[in-house]
Amino acid sequence: MKTIQERIKEKPILGWVLFGATVVIVFLVGLFASSIVERRGESFTLQQVKPIAEWEPRNEVWGENYPRQFETYMNTRDTSFASKHGGSATIDYLEKYPELVILWAGFGFSRDYKQGRGHAYAIKDTRNSLRTGGEKQSTQPATCWTCKSTDVPRVMNSKGVAGYYSGTWKNTGHDFVNPIGCQDCHDPKTMHLRITRPALVEAFERQGKKMSDFSHNEMRSLVCAQCHVEYYFDSKKVEGAKYLVFPWDNGFTAEDMEKYYDDIEFSDWTHSLSKAPMLKAQHPEYEMFKTGIHAKRGVSCADCHMPYKTEGGVKFTDHHIQSPLANIENSCMVCHREKTENLIRDVVETQDKLEENRKIAEKALAKAHIEAKAAWDNGATEAEMKPILKLIRHSQWRWDYVAATNGLGFHAPVEAFRVLGTSIQKAEEARRELALLLTKKGVKYPIAFPDISTKDKAQKFIGLKMEELKADKKNLINNVFPEWDKKAKERQGSLQQY
Amino acid sequence: MKTIQERIKEKPILGWVLFGATVVIVFLVGLFASSIVERRGESFTLQQVKPIAEWEPRNEVWGENYPRQFETYMNTRDTSFASKHGGSATIDYLEKYPELVILWAGFGFSRDYKQGRGHAYAIKDTRNSLRTGGEKQSTQPATCWTCKSTDVPRVMNSKGVAGYYSGTWKNTGHDFVNPIGCQDCHDPKTMHLRITRPALVEAFERQGKKMSDFSHNEMRSLVCAQCHVEYYFDSKKVEGAKYLVFPWDNGFTAEDMEKYYDDIEFSDWTHSLSKAPMLKAQHPEYEMFKTGIHAKRGVSCADCHMPYKTEGGVKFTDHHIQSPLANIENSCMVCHREKTENLIRDVVETQDKLEENRKIAEKALAKAHIEAKAAWDNGATEAEMKPILKLIRHSQWRWDYVAATNGLGFHAPVEAFRVLGTSIQKAEEARRELALLLTKKGVKYPIAFPDISTKDKAQKFIGLKMEELKADKKNLINNVFPEWDKKAKERQGSLQQY
Repeated sequence: MKTIQERIKEKPILGWVLFGATVVIVFLVGLFASSIVERRGESFTLQQVKPIAEWEPRNEVWGENYPRQFETYMNTRDTSFASKHGGSATIDYLEKYPELVILWAGFGFSRDYKQGRGHAYAIKDTRNSLRTGGEKQSTQPATCWTCKSTDVPRVMNSKGVAGYYSGTWKNTGHDFVNPIGCQDCHDPKTMHLRITRPALVEAFERQGKKMSDFSHNEMRSLVCAQCHVEYYFDSKKVEGAKYLVFPWDNGFTAEDMEKYYDDIEFSDWTHSLSKAPMLKAQHPEYEMFKTGIHAKRGVSCADCHMPYKTEGGVKFTDHHIQSPLANIENSCMVCHREKTENLIRDVVETQDKLEENRKIAEKALAKAHIEAKAAWDNGATEAEMKPILKLIRHSQWRWDYVAATNGLGFHAPVEAFRVLGTSIQKAEEARRELALLLTKKGVKYPIAFPDISTKDKAQKFIGLKMEELKADKKNLINNVFPEWDKKAKERQGSLQQY
Repeated sequence: MKTIQERIKEKPILGWVLFGATVVIVFLVGLFASSIVERRGESFTLQQVKPIAEWEPRNEVWGENYPRQFETYMNTRDTSFASKHGGSATIDYLEKYPELVILWAGFGFSRDYKQGRGHAYAIKDTRNSLRTGGEKQSTQPATCWTCKSTDVPRVMNSKGVAGYYSGTWKNTGHDFVNPIGCQDCHDPKTMHLRITRPALVEAFERQGKKMSDFSHNEMRSLVCAQCHVEYYFDSKKVEGAKYLVFPWDNGFTAEDMEKYYDDIEFSDWTHSLSKAPMLKAQHPEYEMFKTGIHAKRGVSCADCHMPYKTEGGVKFTDHHIQSPLANIENSCMVCHREKTENLIRDVVETQDKLEENRKIAEKALAKAHIEAKAAWDNGATEAEMKPILKLIRHSQWRWDYVAATNGLGFHAPVEAFRVLGTSIQKAEEARRELALLLTKKGVKYPIAFPDISTKDKAQKFIGLKMEELKADKKNLINNVFPEWDKKAKERQGSLQQY
């Protein structure tokens, strides 16, 4: 057999063919390599444009440098998933569960409580909620803006933290027009994750922890934990201020926080029917999540709610923060190789079972409040009522710890059920004591319960003048909001409408 | 450059070296192939020994053909894992939770209730339990042997199914000496999995299902479901027989079976304190497991409790049936690549939380029974008590559905918690009604509760004469068991002591 060298010697043209083929192959490899380098480059070139000012609240300004993140963030305005699964993007929980009106009698939530929409709607929905009041009847402090706007760090920087906490919601409304966004979690120079809300930092400091102790992966949950936590307004810390505090000094469980609140004798409001000193759970997602299996396996909030996405040559974090169920292929399926329908079925089944127990507590609590009112009306004394009201306070706090938490218990089903079990026990124990007390006072038991089968009926029963509240809100919307927007536009030069 | 052919032409010895090397390599490959074939062969040769007779109850006879399966089966006598984790292989639950004595007043379980040991101890532990009674006071039917012995199919074959169900535990004891084993799940000719207990087949038949409809993987759970299920003794089906029936006609949930029992007005016993018509949950493991995530992902009982094992060239099913926690590396870790300590921690945490809620129901139920007795003692009428006793019956059934199930809720934590939540509600509601009734009857509320802080105190309170029961049992052990063993040895020629 002849070697290639021998063949070339015989036919020199063969050498030129081989040379030509090599040239062509090398050229194609070069083209391919160039394409890889170019696509990689996309991710860098885009991050090297104009600098963003410290405390820049406008998401669209950040968006000029980070169009993919901004574009996906703007998708938080998309409500089609919620519409598909819950019937409405803003489920009216009071309509769906009228007992809630009774549970929150005397508190803003009894007026209006809807499912939250995406981050981009934070300002719009807060402004329009009946909870924040109207032109005349607005009593909320500026502290309520803390989790709604990227303007908060800017204002805290200019007024000081306590100064910020000292305003009212209504008088400072012009300052907060940019909804939750870039500035809340990112350093504008390095884009590193950073904490901009002091309450989280202060809570960890009281436990001897610095933010710099946490890993990047932990930060991917902690930026969320600036807001998705339990908190309260402390009026004693700084004169005249409603200081935002996380009640974490004893730990993160429902019982730990209950003890914290009991020890400082704190209550969010006094119930208008039962007169119980009540606690309103906010949305202890972070606390609940930490007890669940996903947290134990090192999964962060962002892993499921902001999974990675690829566009062109760029891999980036999807800033369309939403239910992982709306994006199962990129969230759950990274770890769980199961059929989409099976994953959804399993989550929904757990949530449905939890709802079953949640409603047991809910109905018992509604009756307990109404029975407590009957006891007061029939001459019950403070001493007789005190232990009963404590049971109601604790039961409702524990129920709310589960009910108020996004995910309908999915973040930690076992812990959610455990806490609900104790809530049911306490609500029923309160009802036993009330039954005895009412009997003692000569009241026929069971008492006649009012018809609270709809939101309207329940609101009427607790004495809410809804028409007045709605008219007052309308005035705020028509007369005040345009002024806020005008001032804001003057201040920042532009104003994006979400 | 010279080709190999050219080099060989120059030095012929090179050709012989190459030839020699090839011979050596081919020889080694042959050796290796032979080793593979031989090791594969081990698994077959061992299965080709002497035939096993139909209905052969002796595990050691089967073991001659299947030494690996038999050897691992015999490891079910090993109690070291339980000792390590629970302090004792036979935790005395009545000592640990004295409320149980009250919950089962008037029923055998109040005398004696210990953690079960392995299958090899089934006969020994059943014989020695105070629940099966003594020489004089033995009232259990032969049906109790159904899940304890490989002799059951043999006796059913000779006496007929109803004939078997018609004997008494004591009079038929000589017939049942071989503990749960090979015969219960395997066909002696083909070793295929098969169902030997009619109750399972009959339950599925009533639902229009044949055993042949189930896959091999389902059979790996269904052989367990012959016993690890809820069942009851039906006295109406065949005159004079305690016919074993699974109450599955409405479905597998606690509520489905509760409805079944309510519809046929069945009760296991009448509670000696409250007079409530009670249900004793057996151990609805299969039913509970089916609602959990492992079942949904197609995992069978055997996958975790009898994982595959390799010895020499043979891969076989480990017949040391035990808690997967005692063998995490071969069970959980096949799917869950996590640290052993983390897996154990997560299971134990779930079980601990479930125990917390279980105890809430337990304590409420114990008080309800005692309060109900006080109500009867103070002139309560049947009409007044009926709705209360129904609440107690349902609450305790649901509590027991969870409490009696092996795995401490781990097989389906969400379902276990859901059911427990409803149990707590019902126990507390019963107590409210009792509080009102007692007050109506002029009894001071709360009533004085007896000291039931230990098993002894609780047993004394419900009027059990434990010394008598123990002496009677001792007579049975000394006078009767040797006769049973003698008869058995005569029948089958040999008797292995476990």
